[in-house]
Amino acid sequence: MNEPVLARLQHLMTLREEVESLAGVGPWTPAADWCDGDTHLELHLDVPGVQPGSLELLEEGDTVTVAGQRPEGTRLLHTERPSGTFRRTFTFPEPVMAQSGQATLSGGVLVVKFEKRHPTINVPVRGED
Amino acid sequence: MNEPVLARLQHLMTLREEVESLAGVGPWTPAADWCDGDTHLELHLDVPGVQPGSLELLEEGDTVTVAGQRPEGTRLLHTERPSGTFRRTFTFPEPVMAQSGQATLSGGVLVVKFEKRHPTINVPVRGED
Repeated sequence: MNEPVLARLQHLMTLREEVESLAGVGPWTPAADWCDGDTHLELHLDVPGVQPGSLELLEEGDTVTVAGQRPEGTRLLHTERPSGTFRRTFTFPEPVMAQSGQATLSGGVLVVKFEKRHPTINVPVRGED
Repeated sequence: MNEPVLARLQHLMTLREEVESLAGVGPWTPAADWCDGDTHLELHLDVPGVQPGSLELLEEGDTVTVAGQRPEGTRLLHTERPSGTFRRTFTFPEPVMAQSGQATLSGGVLVVKFEKRHPTINVPVRGED
Protein backbone atom coordinates (compact mmCIF):
# COMPACT_ATOMS: atom_id res chain seq x y z
CA MET A 1 0.00 0.00 0.00
CA ASN A 2 1.46 3.41 -0.92
CA GLU A 3 1.57 6.49 1.32
CA PRO A 4 -1.53 8.37 0.10
CA VAL A 5 -3.65 5.23 0.53
CA LEU A 6 -2.28 4.70 4.05
CA ALA A 7 -2.98 8.32 5.00
CA ARG A 8 -6.51 8.02 3.58
CA LEU A 9 -6.99 4.77 5.49
CA GLN A 10 -5.88 6.36 8.75
CA HIS A 11 -8.23 9.27 8.16
CA LEU A 12 -11.09 6.88 7.47
CA MET A 13 -10.31 4.82 10.55
CA THR A 14 -10.72 7.96 12.65
CA LEU A 15 -14.01 8.69 10.91
CA ARG A 16 -15.11 5.15 11.57
CA GLU A 17 -14.70 5.70 15.30
CA GLU A 18 -16.77 8.84 14.91
CA VAL A 19 -19.48 6.80 13.12
CA GLU A 20 -19.58 4.32 15.96
CA SER A 21 -19.77 7.01 18.61
CA LEU A 22 -22.51 8.87 16.67
CA ALA A 23 -24.45 5.66 16.12
CA GLY A 24 -24.26 4.84 19.80
CA VAL A 25 -22.58 1.52 18.99
CA GLY A 26 -21.12 0.34 22.26
CA PRO A 27 -18.12 -1.89 22.68
CA TRP A 28 -20.23 -4.96 21.95
CA THR A 29 -23.16 -5.28 19.55
CA PRO A 30 -23.56 -9.01 18.83
CA ALA A 31 -24.49 -9.66 15.20
CA ALA A 32 -28.04 -10.93 14.62
CA ASP A 33 -30.08 -12.65 11.90
CA TRP A 34 -33.82 -13.12 11.60
CA CYS A 35 -34.79 -16.36 9.83
CA ASP A 36 -38.22 -17.05 8.43
CA GLY A 37 -39.95 -20.40 8.78
CA ASP A 38 -43.46 -21.57 7.85
CA THR A 39 -44.66 -21.62 11.45
CA HIS A 40 -41.85 -19.88 13.36
CA LEU A 41 -39.49 -16.92 13.29
CA GLU A 42 -35.97 -17.40 14.59
CA LEU A 43 -33.58 -14.83 16.01
CA HIS A 44 -29.91 -15.95 15.78
CA LEU A 45 -27.36 -14.00 17.81
CA ASP A 46 -23.55 -14.52 17.91
CA VAL A 47 -22.56 -14.57 21.57
CA PRO A 48 -19.31 -16.59 21.79
CA GLY A 49 -17.97 -17.13 25.28
CA VAL A 50 -21.23 -16.09 27.00
CA GLN A 51 -22.48 -18.50 29.65
CA PRO A 52 -26.21 -19.40 29.51
CA GLY A 53 -26.64 -18.12 33.08
CA SER A 54 -25.52 -14.62 32.13
CA LEU A 55 -28.10 -14.23 29.33
CA GLU A 56 -31.44 -12.47 29.82
CA LEU A 57 -34.40 -12.42 27.42
CA LEU A 58 -37.43 -10.16 27.68
CA GLU A 59 -40.48 -10.22 25.39
CA GLU A 60 -42.46 -6.99 25.55
CA GLY A 61 -45.22 -6.19 23.02
CA ASP A 62 -43.71 -6.36 19.55
CA THR A 63 -40.11 -6.43 20.77
CA VAL A 64 -37.64 -8.84 22.30
CA THR A 65 -34.59 -7.68 24.26
CA VAL A 66 -31.49 -9.80 24.74
CA ALA A 67 -28.86 -8.84 27.30
CA GLY A 68 -25.73 -10.60 28.48
CA GLN A 69 -22.10 -10.26 29.37
CA ARG A 70 -18.76 -11.97 29.32
CA PRO A 71 -15.77 -11.21 31.51
CA GLU A 72 -12.78 -9.29 30.23
CA GLY A 73 -9.68 -11.36 29.41
CA THR A 74 -6.63 -11.18 31.64
CA ARG A 75 -2.99 -10.49 30.77
CA LEU A 76 -3.92 -9.45 27.23
CA LEU A 77 -1.04 -8.76 24.86
CA HIS A 78 -3.40 -7.88 22.02
CA THR A 79 -7.18 -7.61 22.09
CA GLU A 80 -9.98 -7.26 19.57
CA ARG A 81 -12.69 -9.31 21.29
CA PRO A 82 -15.33 -7.14 22.95
CA SER A 83 -16.16 -7.84 26.57
CA GLY A 84 -18.47 -6.53 29.25
CA THR A 85 -22.22 -6.19 28.82
CA PHE A 86 -24.47 -5.88 25.79
CA ARG A 87 -28.19 -5.21 25.37
CA ARG A 88 -30.09 -5.27 22.08
CA THR A 89 -33.80 -4.77 21.42
CA PHE A 90 -35.35 -6.18 18.24
CA THR A 91 -38.78 -5.54 16.77
CA PHE A 92 -40.38 -8.75 15.49
CA PRO A 93 -40.36 -8.73 11.67
CA GLU A 94 -43.97 -9.99 11.83
CA PRO A 95 -46.53 -10.71 14.59
CA VAL A 96 -45.73 -13.64 16.91
CA MET A 97 -47.69 -15.41 19.65
CA ALA A 98 -47.07 -13.83 23.04
CA GLN A 99 -44.89 -15.86 25.42
CA SER A 100 -43.96 -18.31 22.66
CA GLY A 101 -40.18 -17.65 22.76
CA GLN A 102 -37.93 -20.68 23.24
CA ALA A 103 -34.18 -20.14 23.51
CA THR A 104 -31.19 -22.44 23.11
CA LEU A 105 -27.49 -21.60 23.25
CA SER A 106 -25.14 -23.82 21.26
CA GLY A 107 -21.63 -23.25 19.91
CA GLY A 108 -21.76 -19.59 20.92
CA VAL A 109 -24.98 -18.92 18.95
CA LEU A 110 -28.21 -18.05 20.77
CA VAL A 111 -31.30 -19.16 18.84
CA VAL A 112 -34.69 -17.87 19.97
CA LYS A 113 -37.71 -19.39 18.25
CA PHE A 114 -41.10 -17.61 18.20
CA GLU A 115 -44.40 -19.01 17.00
CA LYS A 116 -45.88 -16.94 14.17
CA ARG A 117 -49.35 -15.51 14.66
CA HIS A 118 -50.05 -16.04 10.95
CA PRO A 119 -48.30 -19.22 9.84
CA THR A 120 -47.68 -19.88 6.17
CA ILE A 121 -49.95 -22.72 5.10
CA ASN A 122 -49.11 -24.83 2.09
CA VAL A 123 -52.38 -25.67 0.34
CA PRO A 124 -51.99 -28.87 -1.66
CA VAL A 125 -53.04 -28.59 -5.29
CA ARG A 126 -54.75 -31.66 -6.78
CA GLY A 127 -54.83 -32.48 -10.45
CA GLU A 128 -57.95 -33.73 -12.19
CA ASP A 129 -56.66 -37.03 -13.55
CA MET B 1 -31.17 12.63 16.47
CA ASN B 2 -31.63 15.75 14.32
CA GLU B 3 -31.29 15.95 10.53
CA PRO B 4 -27.69 17.23 10.22
CA VAL B 5 -26.49 14.49 12.56
CA LEU B 6 -28.38 11.86 10.55
CA ALA B 7 -26.92 13.15 7.29
CA ARG B 8 -23.43 13.13 8.82
CA LEU B 9 -24.02 9.60 10.09
CA GLN B 10 -25.10 8.40 6.65
CA HIS B 11 -22.04 10.01 5.09
CA LEU B 12 -19.80 8.35 7.67
CA MET B 13 -21.43 4.96 7.14
CA THR B 14 -20.51 5.20 3.45
CA LEU B 15 -16.96 6.11 4.41
CA ARG B 16 -16.87 3.18 6.78
CA GLU B 17 -17.59 0.82 3.91
CA GLU B 18 -14.72 2.49 2.04
CA VAL B 19 -12.45 1.90 5.05
CA GLU B 20 -13.33 -1.76 5.09
CA SER B 21 -12.78 -2.18 1.38
CA LEU B 22 -9.44 -0.32 1.57
CA ALA B 23 -8.33 -2.34 4.57
CA GLY B 24 -9.15 -5.55 2.75
CA VAL B 25 -11.55 -6.58 5.53
CA GLY B 26 -13.54 -9.44 4.11
CA PRO B 27 -17.02 -10.46 5.10
CA TRP B 28 -15.69 -12.30 8.13
CA THR B 29 -12.66 -11.45 10.26
CA PRO B 30 -13.16 -13.23 13.60
CA ALA B 31 -11.99 -11.10 16.53
CA ALA B 32 -8.86 -12.38 18.31
CA ASP B 33 -7.03 -11.88 21.61
CA TRP B 34 -3.53 -12.95 22.63
CA CYS B 35 -3.23 -13.79 26.33
CA ASP B 36 0.05 -14.04 28.18
CA GLY B 37 0.76 -16.76 30.74
CA ASP B 38 3.91 -17.69 32.64
CA THR B 39 4.60 -20.78 30.54
CA HIS B 40 2.12 -20.44 27.64
CA LEU B 41 0.66 -18.01 25.12
CA GLU B 42 -2.99 -18.34 24.21
CA LEU B 43 -4.78 -17.24 21.06
CA HIS B 44 -8.54 -16.75 21.60
CA LEU B 45 -10.74 -16.45 18.51
CA ASP B 46 -14.51 -15.80 18.35
CA VAL B 47 -15.93 -18.38 15.92
CA PRO B 48 -19.60 -18.86 16.91
CA GLY B 49 -21.47 -21.46 14.91
CA VAL B 50 -18.32 -23.01 13.45
CA GLN B 51 -18.09 -26.79 13.73
CA PRO B 52 -14.75 -28.22 14.97
CA GLY B 53 -14.44 -30.28 11.77
CA SER B 54 -14.46 -27.18 9.58
CA LEU B 55 -11.54 -25.51 11.40
CA GLU B 56 -7.94 -25.73 10.19
CA LEU B 57 -4.79 -24.65 12.03
CA LEU B 58 -1.36 -24.33 10.56
CA GLU B 59 1.84 -23.44 12.43
CA GLU B 60 4.57 -22.17 10.15
CA GLY B 61 7.74 -20.52 11.50
CA ASP B 62 6.70 -17.59 13.67
CA THR B 63 3.09 -17.58 12.48
CA VAL B 64 -0.10 -19.51 13.02
CA THR B 65 -2.95 -19.50 10.50
CA VAL B 66 -6.54 -20.29 11.40
CA ALA B 67 -9.12 -20.97 8.71
CA GLY B 68 -12.72 -22.06 8.90
CA GLN B 69 -16.23 -21.59 7.61
CA ARG B 70 -19.86 -21.67 8.50
CA PRO B 71 -22.78 -22.09 6.15
CA GLU B 72 -24.97 -19.17 5.12
CA GLY B 73 -28.38 -18.96 6.82
CA THR B 74 -31.51 -19.73 4.87
CA ARG B 75 -34.71 -17.69 4.46
CA LEU B 76 -33.09 -14.64 6.05
CA LEU B 77 -35.37 -11.65 6.70
CA HIS B 78 -32.52 -9.61 8.14
CA THR B 79 -28.84 -10.51 8.36
CA GLU B 80 -25.76 -9.14 10.07
CA ARG B 81 -23.94 -12.38 10.89
CA PRO B 82 -21.04 -13.05 8.51
CA SER B 83 -20.88 -16.43 6.81
CA GLY B 84 -18.67 -18.31 4.41
CA THR B 85 -14.95 -18.77 4.89
CA PHE B 86 -12.33 -16.89 6.87
CA ARG B 87 -8.55 -17.16 7.10
CA ARG B 88 -6.34 -15.21 9.49
CA THR B 89 -2.58 -15.41 10.02
CA PHE B 90 -1.06 -14.25 13.31
CA THR B 91 2.58 -13.68 14.19
CA PHE B 92 3.43 -15.05 17.64
CA PRO B 93 3.90 -12.12 20.08
CA GLU B 94 6.99 -13.97 21.39
CA PRO B 95 8.87 -17.18 20.49
CA VAL B 96 7.04 -20.46 21.11
CA MET B 97 8.09 -24.10 20.97
CA ALA B 98 7.49 -25.59 17.51
CA GLN B 99 4.56 -28.03 17.26
CA SER B 100 3.36 -27.13 20.77
CA GLY B 101 -0.08 -25.80 19.73
CA GLN B 102 -3.10 -27.37 21.43
CA ALA B 103 -6.57 -26.25 20.38
CA THR B 104 -9.98 -26.51 22.01
CA LEU B 105 -13.31 -25.14 20.81
CA SER B 106 -15.90 -24.32 23.46
CA GLY B 107 -18.91 -22.00 23.45
CA GLY B 108 -17.95 -20.62 20.05
CA VAL B 109 -14.45 -19.60 21.20
CA LEU B 110 -11.37 -21.33 19.78
CA VAL B 111 -8.46 -21.35 22.25
CA VAL B 112 -5.02 -22.36 20.98
CA LYS B 113 -2.32 -22.74 23.61
CA PHE B 114 1.39 -22.58 22.72
CA GLU B 115 4.34 -23.37 24.97
CA LYS B 116 6.66 -20.38 25.38
CA ARG B 117 10.28 -20.82 24.45
CA HIS B 118 11.29 -18.52 27.30
CA PRO B 119 8.90 -19.10 30.21
CA THR B 120 8.63 -16.55 32.99
CA ILE B 121 10.18 -18.07 36.09
CA ASN B 122 9.23 -16.82 39.52
CA VAL B 123 12.36 -16.91 41.68
CA PRO B 124 11.44 -17.24 45.34
CA VAL B 125 13.03 -14.59 47.59
CA ARG B 126 14.09 -15.81 51.02
CA GLY B 127 14.42 -13.55 54.04
CA GLU B 128 17.32 -13.88 56.48
CA ASP B 129 15.38 -14.53 59.67
